[in-house]
Amino acid sequence: MLRTLPRTLIDPILVRALEEDLGAGDITTEACVAEGQHAVARGVARKELVWCGAEVARRVFELVDPSLHFEAMAADGAKVMRSTTLFSVKGSARAILMGERVALNFVQRMSGVATATRRYVDALPAASATRITDTRKTTPGLRLLERYAVRQGGGFNHRWDLGSAVLIKDNHIVAAGGVRAAIEAARMRAPHTSRIECEVDSLDQLKEALDARADIVLLDNMDTSTVQEAVRLTRGRAVLEASGGITFERVAELARAGVDAISVGALTHAAPAVDIGLDFEP
Amino acid sequence: MLRTLPRTLIDPILVRALEEDLGAGDITTEACVAEGQHAVARGVARKELVWCGAEVARRVFELVDPSLHFEAMAADGAKVMRSTTLFSVKGSARAILMGERVALNFVQRMSGVATATRRYVDALPAASATRITDTRKTTPGLRLLERYAVRQGGGFNHRWDLGSAVLIKDNHIVAAGGVRAAIEAARMRAPHTSRIECEVDSLDQLKEALDARADIVLLDNMDTSTVQEAVRLTRGRAVLEASGGITFERVAELARAGVDAISVGALTHAAPAVDIGLDFEP
Amino acid sequence: MLRTLPRTLIDPILVRALEEDLGAGDITTEACVAEGQHAVARGVARKELVWCGAEVARRVFELVDPSLHFEAMAADGAKVMRSTTLFSVKGSARAILMGERVALNFVQRMSGVATATRRYVDALPAASATRITDTRKTTPGLRLLERYAVRQGGGFNHRWDLGSAVLIKDNHIVAAGGVRAAIEAARMRAPHTSRIECEVDSLDQLKEALDARADIVLLDNMDTSTVQEAVRLTRGRAVLEASGGITFERVAELARAGVDAISVGALTHAAPAVDIGLDFEP
Amino acid sequence: MLRTLPRTLIDPILVRALEEDLGAGDITTEACVAEGQHAVARGVARKELVWCGAEVARRVFELVDPSLHFEAMAADGAKVMRSTTLFSVKGSARAILMGERVALNFVQRMSGVATATRRYVDALPAASATRITDTRKTTPGLRLLERYAVRQGGGFNHRWDLGSAVLIKDNHIVAAGGVRAAIEAARMRAPHTSRIECEVDSLDQLKEALDARADIVLLDNMDTSTVQEAVRLTRGRAVLEASGGITFERVAELARAGVDAISVGALTHAAPAVDIGLDFEP
Amino acid sequence: MLRTLPRTLIDPILVRALEEDLGAGDITTEACVAEGQHAVARGVARKELVWCGAEVARRVFELVDPSLHFEAMAADGAKVMRSTTLFSVKGSARAILMGERVALNFVQRMSGVATATRRYVDALPAASATRITDTRKTTPGLRLLERYAVRQGGGFNHRWDLGSAVLIKDNHIVAAGGVRAAIEAARMRAPHTSRIECEVDSLDQLKEALDARADIVLLDNMDTSTVQEAVRLTRGRAVLEASGGITFERVAELARAGVDAISVGALTHAAPAVDIGLDFEP
Amino acid sequence: MLRTLPRTLIDPILVRALEEDLGAGDITTEACVAEGQHAVARGVARKELVWCGAEVARRVFELVDPSLHFEAMAADGAKVMRSTTLFSVKGSARAILMGERVALNFVQRMSGVATATRRYVDALPAASATRITDTRKTTPGLRLLERYAVRQGGGFNHRWDLGSAVLIKDNHIVAAGGVRAAIEAARMRAPHTSRIECEVDSLDQLKEALDARADIVLLDNMDTSTVQEAVRLTRGRAVLEASGGITFERVAELARAGVDAISVGALTHAAPAVDIGLDFEP
Repeated sequence: MLRTLPRTLIDPILVRALEEDLGAGDITTEACVAEGQHAVARGVARKELVWCGAEVARRVFELVDPSLHFEAMAADGAKVMRSTTLFSVKGSARAILMGERVALNFVQRMSGVATATRRYVDALPAASATRITDTRKTTPGLRLLERYAVRQGGGFNHRWDLGSAVLIKDNHIVAAGGVRAAIEAARMRAPHTSRIECEVDSLDQLKEALDARADIVLLDNMDTSTVQEAVRLTRGRAVLEASGGITFERVAELARAGVDAISVGALTHAAPAVDIGLDFEP
Repeated sequence: MLRTLPRTLIDPILVRALEEDLGAGDITTEACVAEGQHAVARGVARKELVWCGAEVARRVFELVDPSLHFEAMAADGAKVMRSTTLFSVKGSARAILMGERVALNFVQRMSGVATATRRYVDALPAASATRITDTRKTTPGLRLLERYAVRQGGGFNHRWDLGSAVLIKDNHIVAAGGVRAAIEAARMRAPHTSRIECEVDSLDQLKEALDARADIVLLDNMDTSTVQEAVRLTRGRAVLEASGGITFERVAELARAGVDAISVGALTHAAPAVDIGLDFEP
Repeated sequence: MLRTLPRTLIDPILVRALEEDLGAGDITTEACVAEGQHAVARGVARKELVWCGAEVARRVFELVDPSLHFEAMAADGAKVMRSTTLFSVKGSARAILMGERVALNFVQRMSGVATATRRYVDALPAASATRITDTRKTTPGLRLLERYAVRQGGGFNHRWDLGSAVLIKDNHIVAAGGVRAAIEAARMRAPHTSRIECEVDSLDQLKEALDARADIVLLDNMDTSTVQEAVRLTRGRAVLEASGGITFERVAELARAGVDAISVGALTHAAPAVDIGLDFEP
Repeated sequence: MLRTLPRTLIDPILVRALEEDLGAGDITTEACVAEGQHAVARGVARKELVWCGAEVARRVFELVDPSLHFEAMAADGAKVMRSTTLFSVKGSARAILMGERVALNFVQRMSGVATATRRYVDALPAASATRITDTRKTTPGLRLLERYAVRQGGGFNHRWDLGSAVLIKDNHIVAAGGVRAAIEAARMRAPHTSRIECEVDSLDQLKEALDARADIVLLDNMDTSTVQEAVRLTRGRAVLEASGGITFERVAELARAGVDAISVGALTHAAPAVDIGLDFEP
Repeated sequence: MLRTLPRTLIDPILVRALEEDLGAGDITTEACVAEGQHAVARGVARKELVWCGAEVARRVFELVDPSLHFEAMAADGAKVMRSTTLFSVKGSARAILMGERVALNFVQRMSGVATATRRYVDALPAASATRITDTRKTTPGLRLLERYAVRQGGGFNHRWDLGSAVLIKDNHIVAAGGVRAAIEAARMRAPHTSRIECEVDSLDQLKEALDARADIVLLDNMDTSTVQEAVRLTRGRAVLEASGGITFERVAELARAGVDAISVGALTHAAPAVDIGLDFEP
Repeated sequence: MLRTLPRTLIDPILVRALEEDLGAGDITTEACVAEGQHAVARGVARKELVWCGAEVARRVFELVDPSLHFEAMAADGAKVMRSTTLFSVKGSARAILMGERVALNFVQRMSGVATATRRYVDALPAASATRITDTRKTTPGLRLLERYAVRQGGGFNHRWDLGSAVLIKDNHIVAAGGVRAAIEAARMRAPHTSRIECEVDSLDQLKEALDARADIVLLDNMDTSTVQEAVRLTRGRAVLEASGGITFERVAELARAGVDAISVGALTHAAPAVDIGLDFEP
């Protein structure tokens, strides 16, 4: 992960979490555990899950005490059975106990996102070229980690933020005076490196967007038959993305209808944490 | 909320979220919406929910543009029907569009926690004195807001962090050499202002904890009949808290068994965001 | 500017600059200027320039002392004659003197970038559709402000950062095993909202990039006749961007050759500050 | 450099720059370069220049990935020929590519300042005791690095910030009621460790400043013959600094006129970045 | 200390102090000490004192230059004689000189707090079970380190912050409408993990607090005979804490009167720094 | 104060202190005080003291709740009698209670420094020109506020940090190879705006420093008769500063001996907080 997400980007997120949980010190551990005591603990999947967050866990423990020894036992993105050991950490018992909750809070959440993503991806028809993508409905402050977890779960990322691609929504359309005007305004002003995506909620709007040469059209909350019609109308002139009201069942039928991407806010805003525990060796 | 949670505490959380989403500017809005354009938008519940986050939404918009005018239409903690208007915001269309996603990400999550909490609280028997409480399984960086949302949902907070109360878990017990030794070590060293809670997983451990005069005993993953027996054994000598495997059904039976508190990690780590939208007036 | 660049994004940049210059207080001003003394000062162009930075100057003074009254006299992006008054600031003489240098350091630099950009833009043939764009060669920490200044000078922005679009450079090509392999790898993994740009340094590479359906091809350090040939070969199948060794003279001939964009690192990494002074009314 | 500028001071500057460029991850590199791929790259001067920034480059790469191996090949302050290798960096190809642009942005700018400074210093007559100094017209946020580069280029630093020495300018003079009053007020209130410098724009003001025993007099925008007269009048009673409208030609004549220091804003506010590239070994 | 106070919590405090003292670099050291010069320095107690801060000193030097070698010669909490060597640091002379003042400022203050605390603790009767505790009257920004120093001096900590325990003061009593109402309100709303402490200034208020089952009663500014009466009245039903006007003499008589804790603001708000110097080996 | 110390410099200090004390919210106040409750409170001197910190107190309350109304009743630097009202604050009772401790911690400390400084200043002979100055032995993180308090107490500031003036100490002398060599090295390399101060501990070293034309000589730990001799030897050729072992009695005799400045570390490192309370109107 250090080679995918540079340490300098993840440290501030982890430091804030440690400050939040440890700000006043750990009075229980200081009272009950001797300073020199040594421990070995293993992170264990309590359920079947897609594991994600090895390097985050490693770094949390390192920030608490650089002398802890951490070893990842499973690779990010691996689907593991219940009771699989995911990582081990050895060294000062005090330090491990102080980092435990924060490390688990991160990996339970990241693995939760990866696991939810995998479920959506597995719902696609075999050999489908359709992508499952995330949205900007990420947890405030954790976008970097959640986006990484989506990729580890087999999903794809949507635009990173408001500055990395154009996505024209209904309010922009109203403000600009129509689909065509909005797309043209965007083409006139946005970086030439940005694709221009336009959200539409009817086939008429789709046609207007295609005429204005949108790069991507987001089909918002359309039923499957309308989506099928949209694919026919588009004839490959734009990337088509379906969004809104996506269930596992609909994933397959939307993919078969031929959309290129299905964006699912629930990957990040409704994925429950998965159960991962830290077991100390006796 | 400003009078409950001082502004100085919530600003850093909101600023980070805005930087995350807006770091490069909003190229769509800058292209499609004229600088002087005015808008009125309303935050609307798309489902029945317990509303939470008015002051957070207000402050997000204010941080984007201090000249926006925000008005809360519902009080935090109110259970509202689908389609209820929760707040309005008026002023620069550009500024509203730039703040929209971040504001919604916060209030959807906070209202999600409040809504989930209310469901657990509503599952208690009428007039029950048992508390539903949160845990330290909060979203990294958002503990302050999630704890507030738990309270607005009718729940109670557990200890804030590792320094605000003693909670002796199995690993502390092992490290200290037993329940009694751990409780006594904690009593010797922890601030006299801190209660001493001890987690037990058997009635034998419970007896040992009571003998050592723990203030609170956490009954971990016990079935209801064991909990009933624990209440009988305790005879009011300690606060009893049940935790682990809590479902809506079990809430009622645990409360009837007589525990003082039921702590539920799912209030924060598994509460899905609830659907709240921002509608622009035409 | 507040409505283009939210306050929350520019404040940290300005605060750091104020801390850097004011960290120990202003011993000269505290000694020489009485606390209650009032002053009126005007920001004045010492040369012809393209003005940029009104809102930054306003906010710098406001951060020093919220009671200062600031008024912008010229709009960002306006080309102004020498001696034009750009803004006025009134209030505590101490506060104005403390903010003076930082405010000027910002607007001199931002106006410098806008002025340099305008020179390149003015070198384009009349009615040319070719864009002058910036690069990632911005001053560390000031990208947001420099990008804004480029737009105010009539230029366009390139991709914001490493995450907002794909730009395959020679080292990526080598690592991936060729132009086609690199483009296909990018298409497989990058967000569908990102355009895929590939840098080429020969017409053979260009053909390979077009065959692999790159969205944008960056023609690196090619002479004008090669660029002309590249335009012919491309036949509109990709956006063409020229870069490397761009002079004012070459801007016109490259535009006439038909490239869509000319990216110029010098807009930000070699634009000298322009002279703007602060004159106190006697 | 670590022993000249402590790491703790430069890290925040570098971290912000990395966050700015890498905030969303590097989608091109992640797609095109395998995680285990190894690379060797060399920083190379594309022109003759005064090299500055070895430790900054080292630390940038280290912040991206602590396992990278960096070696400086030239010492800061060395004047090097075109094509000189300045440093090498070895290790994860992904990490090198992610740090490349930020590292180059820093060293191109620092070397630009050092190179410009050296040009001014070289314009001094042989064996001149006159100093070339910088000013407070530094890039917001980069003063520490630019000041260091000035020293590596053979120049000297002026006062660090508003709190480290007194510099009375025209507006302070007006506010205090004259040169003498301003100098006396400063002497009354400023730390006894601070020199008191006064800016004058006429020989009459110079006399007044000398009478009031200013430690340093800044001769603002005076022609060379006036400066010569000023030196005669001063007779060593104060340090004399010339400023305003300094060109390479004037440096020599001002030095011969006998001023102690010539302060040049252009060292930092108008020094273009110099061309340094990163070449990957095939 | 790293195992008591995680590094991630102390680093921000140390970094700010280094930035404050070193922000502009160390011009004396850079001028007078050659870059390669090596030094050995020892931290020495100039008076008898209770030593505290070894790990803080270590980390300060490490933040300046990671290659410095630091060794602690005395354990935190040890009472040492005048002239005792407390620690040694070896390596770059420049780096040691740059870190010297900041390191000493910390350890002089921390040892000052530990030394003052020990004096109060030593004033307790032999074998007394009464605790000497700190308060929230800590130095802004240094609470973590001062609380640690109190513990090393043999004292105990009071509640960490406003969120870690309930402490009802006179203004809360007035606002709530009386002692009983305040205690009941707190019991209704505060976390069940928080003890409820109530400040009283009369025996009548004490009785009301006991009737309302306060966990702790703070006897504010009572004379010793009233405290004796309070202990009698309480009969172990609550923890009793004495505060206000605590002198060394009164510590013994209050302890003998039977209070459980004596809280002393002076441990942190009036403890002078103790004299510790850094001696360089010739 | 806002016009002496810009808000942007003091805010980070105050925000950190509020986060430290309020991080988890104020559970007592939230439980006991109704949200709408209004209060009026007055800051009152419990002893005679030199008041300092009005603007800091104002800003602390404002950061908690911008709607609070604060009024300063005494000017910073005023010597006030016991029971004097220093300021009032009106508005939300919750907000006042949440800000109380932090505001008092600051003003008690700042007033403590101002009061201690005034005692030293008052110990000077009438009409003495000798200055009482602070040192770099300030509380980590609070230098700005403590330096301000020294000035309000009638003292003067020493150099701000390691970069704002040269102060050659014994270890620099050893490293440079003698007093003369150190002073000359400093003169060669330090900014011309910096005075060069050299610490000496014998009259021989003083002579060497004077010969090398030090601007300031610090007479370290000399008895009064040696200081008298030093003044005679110096004959006004350098500013003389006495330091080390300064008591109130010695202040007068050192001033009479004719030193220009007496630097006293105790102004900041040993000044106890003075007692200031916050009284709520009934």
